[in-house]
Amino acid sequence: MTLRYPLSDHSAATGFGGNILDRMSERRDESAFADSVRADRHGRALLYSGDLLVADQEGARILFTRSEAEALGADWVNAVFLGFDADGPIFAAPVPEPGDSFTVHNLRQLAIDARISPELLGAVAQGRSVTGWHATHGFCANCGQPTIMGAIGMRRDCPSCGASHFPRTDPVVIMLAVDGERCLLGRQRRFVEGTYSCLAGFMEHGETIEAAVRREIWEEAGVRTNRVSYYASQPWPFPSSLMIGCFAEAISTEIEPRDRELEDVRWFDRADIGPMLDRTHSVYAAPPAVAIAHHLLRAYYERGAPVANDAVIDGAAIITGAMA
Amino acid sequence: MTLRYPLSDHSAATGFGGNILDRMSERRDESAFADSVRADRHGRALLYSGDLLVADQEGARILFTRSEAEALGADWVNAVFLGFDADGPIFAAPVPEPGDSFTVHNLRQLAIDARISPELLGAVAQGRSVTGWHATHGFCANCGQPTIMGAIGMRRDCPSCGASHFPRTDPVVIMLAVDGERCLLGRQRRFVEGTYSCLAGFMEHGETIEAAVRREIWEEAGVRTNRVSYYASQPWPFPSSLMIGCFAEAISTEIEPRDRELEDVRWFDRADIGPMLDRTHSVYAAPPAVAIAHHLLRAYYERGAPVANDAVIDGAAIITGAMA
Repeated sequence: MTLRYPLSDHSAATGFGGNILDRMSERRDESAFADSVRADRHGRALLYSGDLLVADQEGARILFTRSEAEALGADWVNAVFLGFDADGPIFAAPVPEPGDSFTVHNLRQLAIDARISPELLGAVAQGRSVTGWHATHGFCANCGQPTIMGAIGMRRDCPSCGASHFPRTDPVVIMLAVDGERCLLGRQRRFVEGTYSCLAGFMEHGETIEAAVRREIWEEAGVRTNRVSYYASQPWPFPSSLMIGCFAEAISTEIEPRDRELEDVRWFDRADIGPMLDRTHSVYAAPPAVAIAHHLLRAYYERGAPVANDAVIDGAAIITGAMA
Repeated sequence: MTLRYPLSDHSAATGFGGNILDRMSERRDESAFADSVRADRHGRALLYSGDLLVADQEGARILFTRSEAEALGADWVNAVFLGFDADGPIFAAPVPEPGDSFTVHNLRQLAIDARISPELLGAVAQGRSVTGWHATHGFCANCGQPTIMGAIGMRRDCPSCGASHFPRTDPVVIMLAVDGERCLLGRQRRFVEGTYSCLAGFMEHGETIEAAVRREIWEEAGVRTNRVSYYASQPWPFPSSLMIGCFAEAISTEIEPRDRELEDVRWFDRADIGPMLDRTHSVYAAPPAVAIAHHLLRAYYERGAPVANDAVIDGAAIITGAMA
């Protein structure tokens, strides 16, 4: 039942990038299918208390049976169906703050700790985004009336005006501008001291990925770029972004930001990037492997400027996925 | 003032992909900037009657001055700021159906006819998506109360609950699965007879681009794919999609759709693709150059299976953009 995708592409290596649930999206509208999935005795749920994931006391087990979920206050009939793993259907549901027999976990920290399999971590991200969307989209944006859940949680319908609303995913470009042996990084005010990362920003209407990459680098650094190449993507469930990771070839080098979004933007020597990633640099640091920025920086550090012109997967074929 | 981006990447060559407006997004929240932009005597507007773009009687001029726009019923104070071209700010606004001295145009047909410059066509797509978003998002999805426009049209704010809402852009994967000298195309029921195109579908929460490509091909054709490579992207203003165009390497060939979304899915020989694109094939046809599918097919026809493993821009550097 479970779709096995290859886990060895660049995107699957990012935090939350390893989701292999079979979403059965072609059957979500069949009420008989919805009923059978909901009644499946192998059903388990990921439970969210606000932004946090619920786990057992040891912080190890995060999938709960229907009776366990209901004991914690989950509404099983309105739980969102995420997809099937090898053991059966997985749902996501919000619950109140659980008692002392349970623990709650920040998703970013969960990914950093790497105690959960990459595959399940992808489902955790999916569940967080969709439950967050339902929590903030109870009303119809078109007419203001209350909406109801449809398609086992993948839609909200408005009985008043007839509009259908689907979960939103916000595309964000995140990119490393490269000038030969230097690359461009910025620091947000909220970052830990010394930490720098790739520039990023939300895509807008009427824009290609390449144009968004060039626009954001121009706004945040005043640097012009030309060739843009895609490297990897990542679901980022805070609340529901799709990070689109690219390299960009710099064609100007003077830094003169047009906005004040970043506290600092500067060029870093390629030789500094390795120690920044490994946290052995005396002054600076780069994001951990949960972040797609880490992977962009790692690729640049290892391969140098050519990575910006040759962002496809290295010659060797990927290990082939198989149907389990 | 205008940002000149290179227009020679794969994405810029797609319909609506050539937008070069300087969006000034870093200043949208400054009320003094908003006031000065709105009062700029060089301001012009794109006007939309429902889904259609308004033009003069000859169908040639699509930018209207403030007095012309107001005569047609536009509310200049609530027009959406799109960005600057070399002549000043450009806005977008809805208007009632105009009289006989004007013409209205389907955006897809406008792009096919190619009478408007690719740069301006990109702005037309941007204006269509953002005016459409305002028209269907007058209420707060979080609390159901009316919202008001902010950031010169790039946000809606809820005075009741304080939520901010940003225009949504829906990422869609569109892809060509390749099996050596054959590629996989499908036919939607609404297509003109004989027309086949690339498979496509909306991305979902907790999913990478590569995983979405593999999932959609699996659902619509029952074909398994492995390596995925990005080729180009395209804004698609019906109503506000970001088309993400990819190639995928097929690792199974039997066609057995899981859903009934397509009327037919089949393998096409590479040799047929050129005549299908040029509309000289005796039986089949492929989409016109406005569609990113055309560009994926053209690249495959010209370069063969390696395109799926080497989707970066060909060796030669792109003509460099310059600040106008």
